[in-house]
Amino acid sequence: MNYKMILYIMGQILKVVGGCMILPVIVGFIYGEQHVIASFGIPFVITIAAAILFTIKKPKNNSVFSMEGFVSVALSWITMSAIGAIPFVISGEIPDYPSALFETVSGFTTTGATILSDVESMSKSCLFWRAFTHWLGGMGVLMFVLAVMSSNDSRTMHMMRAECAGPNVGRLVSKSKYTAQILYGIYISLTVLEIIMLMFGGVPFYEAVIHACSSAGTGGFSVWNDSIAHYNSVYVEMVIAVFIILFGVNFNLYYYILIKKFSLAYKNEEVRTYFSIILIATAIITLNILGISESFGQALRHAFFMVASTITSAGFSNTDTSQFPVFSQTLLLILMFIGSCAGSTGGGMKVARIMIIFKTGIKELKYIVSPRAVATVKMDGKPVEKAVIRGASNYLIIFLIIFCVSLLLISLDQFSIEESASAVTTCMNNIGYGVGRFSTSGNLSGLNAFSKIVLCFDMLVGRLEVYPLIMLFAIKKNSY
Amino acid sequence: MNYKMILYIMGQILKVVGGCMILPVIVGFIYGEQHVIASFGIPFVITIAAAILFTIKKPKNNSVFSMEGFVSVALSWITMSAIGAIPFVISGEIPDYPSALFETVSGFTTTGATILSDVESMSKSCLFWRAFTHWLGGMGVLMFVLAVMSSNDSRTMHMMRAECAGPNVGRLVSKSKYTAQILYGIYISLTVLEIIMLMFGGVPFYEAVIHACSSAGTGGFSVWNDSIAHYNSVYVEMVIAVFIILFGVNFNLYYYILIKKFSLAYKNEEVRTYFSIILIATAIITLNILGISESFGQALRHAFFMVASTITSAGFSNTDTSQFPVFSQTLLLILMFIGSCAGSTGGGMKVARIMIIFKTGIKELKYIVSPRAVATVKMDGKPVEKAVIRGASNYLIIFLIIFCVSLLLISLDQFSIEESASAVTTCMNNIGYGVGRFSTSGNLSGLNAFSKIVLCFDMLVGRLEVYPLIMLFAIKKNSY
Repeated sequence: MNYKMILYIMGQILKVVGGCMILPVIVGFIYGEQHVIASFGIPFVITIAAAILFTIKKPKNNSVFSMEGFVSVALSWITMSAIGAIPFVISGEIPDYPSALFETVSGFTTTGATILSDVESMSKSCLFWRAFTHWLGGMGVLMFVLAVMSSNDSRTMHMMRAECAGPNVGRLVSKSKYTAQILYGIYISLTVLEIIMLMFGGVPFYEAVIHACSSAGTGGFSVWNDSIAHYNSVYVEMVIAVFIILFGVNFNLYYYILIKKFSLAYKNEEVRTYFSIILIATAIITLNILGISESFGQALRHAFFMVASTITSAGFSNTDTSQFPVFSQTLLLILMFIGSCAGSTGGGMKVARIMIIFKTGIKELKYIVSPRAVATVKMDGKPVEKAVIRGASNYLIIFLIIFCVSLLLISLDQFSIEESASAVTTCMNNIGYGVGRFSTSGNLSGLNAFSKIVLCFDMLVGRLEVYPLIMLFAIKKNSY
Repeated sequence: MNYKMILYIMGQILKVVGGCMILPVIVGFIYGEQHVIASFGIPFVITIAAAILFTIKKPKNNSVFSMEGFVSVALSWITMSAIGAIPFVISGEIPDYPSALFETVSGFTTTGATILSDVESMSKSCLFWRAFTHWLGGMGVLMFVLAVMSSNDSRTMHMMRAECAGPNVGRLVSKSKYTAQILYGIYISLTVLEIIMLMFGGVPFYEAVIHACSSAGTGGFSVWNDSIAHYNSVYVEMVIAVFIILFGVNFNLYYYILIKKFSLAYKNEEVRTYFSIILIATAIITLNILGISESFGQALRHAFFMVASTITSAGFSNTDTSQFPVFSQTLLLILMFIGSCAGSTGGGMKVARIMIIFKTGIKELKYIVSPRAVATVKMDGKPVEKAVIRGASNYLIIFLIIFCVSLLLISLDQFSIEESASAVTTCMNNIGYGVGRFSTSGNLSGLNAFSKIVLCFDMLVGRLEVYPLIMLFAIKKNSY
């Protein structure tokens, strides 16, 4: 294990996180919030000092294998969450550290679950920082480092894989640096576009930025206690719904569209399935909630927004889903596990992985019926490699094991099985709202410190797709 | 597909089921219940007539492949449930047919979930028939047919595999007929032993028979509304706990002990894991419920009995688990999915399968850490074949898909998500008691007819381990 290189990479990441802390300071100055000098200044100095220390000397041996990639990503995410939580504590807006850490991990992992019962009482700078962690975590901080760092290519692919979502991550262009630049370029453009669209609907600039950052990372933090429902505007809801759906699409697709390879974009089976699921689920839920809605239009509005918000793992809400018939609630619960496309900012198990798992199940049935027939699992018309199939099945297995262990640990707290399962589900899939007590509000206050730590782990496991986190436990054994 | 042979096999099975209906008639005569002549006589005549019709001519082509094995097992279980439900309807004790069918499927599949709110009001003959379906379903009716039929060996293995539980089923001796005889011999001996042990504890003969049949099939039907708690006897509870644990062990083990191959018996990793899980879970739950128990002894008694009852899928109860701390409830919930040993009468996913799945997950992690290291999944010290590993993972996948679809369908009924999930869990794992509204009593009355049919399917899927049932839907495609 190349520890020096891991430190070096972490230093680069800390530079980015530290640098970003200037933004909430600016917000604070604009709105006359004096506390920002202490609350963001102190962590800023610590972070930048540590970053300079870690990167002062570039290691001679700069080889990075998958193990180093996983470990540096995991450690970076933990470190940046630990640092990102400090402003909430110093400002006194979330005085206890475990809660502040939970809120920050929920931010970076784009979960959007909150332990705050009254977000409206928070300062504008802290609310901005909270939403901005969504934006940073959505595309990934390491990805940002890759975009700006000139780097040895063979090693960066390992890191990109460690931070990216989905069963297989490819390079768009021959150098990972340019791939990262293209992805961040698309990400920034879409975010700016959403800010503009929201402002067209009369949303003030500051709020438009917050909600665009939240949408871009498919996070779900808002500045209002009643989330998007606050605006009571079909236009705002539709803009957000459309954008979170767009942020839940594999970003490769936008690249193909940019370089005018429309056929490649159209052929993508995962994206087509993703849109089909959204359409079908919206139709079913619309019909199911018709009885409790004022009109067909209102039913469609609630159904479409909540389906988009759930499958993309954004976790915004424009209605209280606990009032939905149980059938619709169950369907939304299943959508949570499915999640968005691989290579997007969304959470869940990813549509591609679910498709591979589903097709593997069908193949097994075909095999049982006629063992001699040759059945293959295909995606985009091509046979899927055995390693990818095995990877998807095993991901499911490891996901379920972590789910069960987390559920057991959370059940030591004061909640019912349903509530505990809901908390683990919402955190592991990075959704932000659950069922039962943790329904649409996504409010998880009331958890004890131990449960918060467990759920922090689960959120990181969900965002980084299990392996980087698990690798941390394996370091010792392999550090010979 | 060899339809004539499928009919012939079904005929043989119907002979057994029809023949067994003589037993409740005898019970009825002893206790002076006049209704038995009509309630069991009519289905007896129908069954035997159909059986004779189906078996009057042995098909010339008696080849049976896995497809025929699966289909005849699935059709037989459906037919015998359909017939077995008739006595409840004619006697008027469960007047509506869907409910009677649910109760019978719950019996044959050894689930033990009931739609009756007052079992004590039922006639002795019907209660006997209800418990006896557990006993028949536990080891399997087809297995019984194999034990008495002189048969071509190559074909019977396919049928044995279709009805037996677990990832791999082997022959104990060279002929499946003798294997089936040995298994039934052990089964009958253990049942008789339990009847005697229960009578030693002062349980009257009739009740001892009922509870022994229920334990043998790890079903859970009782003659008392408050199940085993009725006796309020540590001795009775311990006898039943020990016997259900014994019935949850792979029966091959008893054969090895019989032929004095103790080392083979001891080496069995699945059985050792099964006992370890029982010990550890009992210890944890004892400590966890200490606070709500009168004494350490009472805590141990409740913990041991409920762990045994849950992991073996018997579903008896000596206390109300909904009063347990949520941690213990969650642990029991996880035990439901683990289930008992392969090749036993118990339910769940089976310890062997869970072990293979768990080890596959660990192997994947090792592979990610060091892709060059060769990691293999081992059971009993020997590498597990790839086909078995794939089978276990895919079983999990198909199980989960059926779970989600069932949950969606049940959620159309009037229950909460927790209750719906609990009903599907208890039925698919053949447990008989659930959480929430469906807690220890295992009482599922209140479900609508559609939900009952879905849960009947789930119970059969659980008992026959998915494939035979699924094959029924594939018949048409392959009947060329």
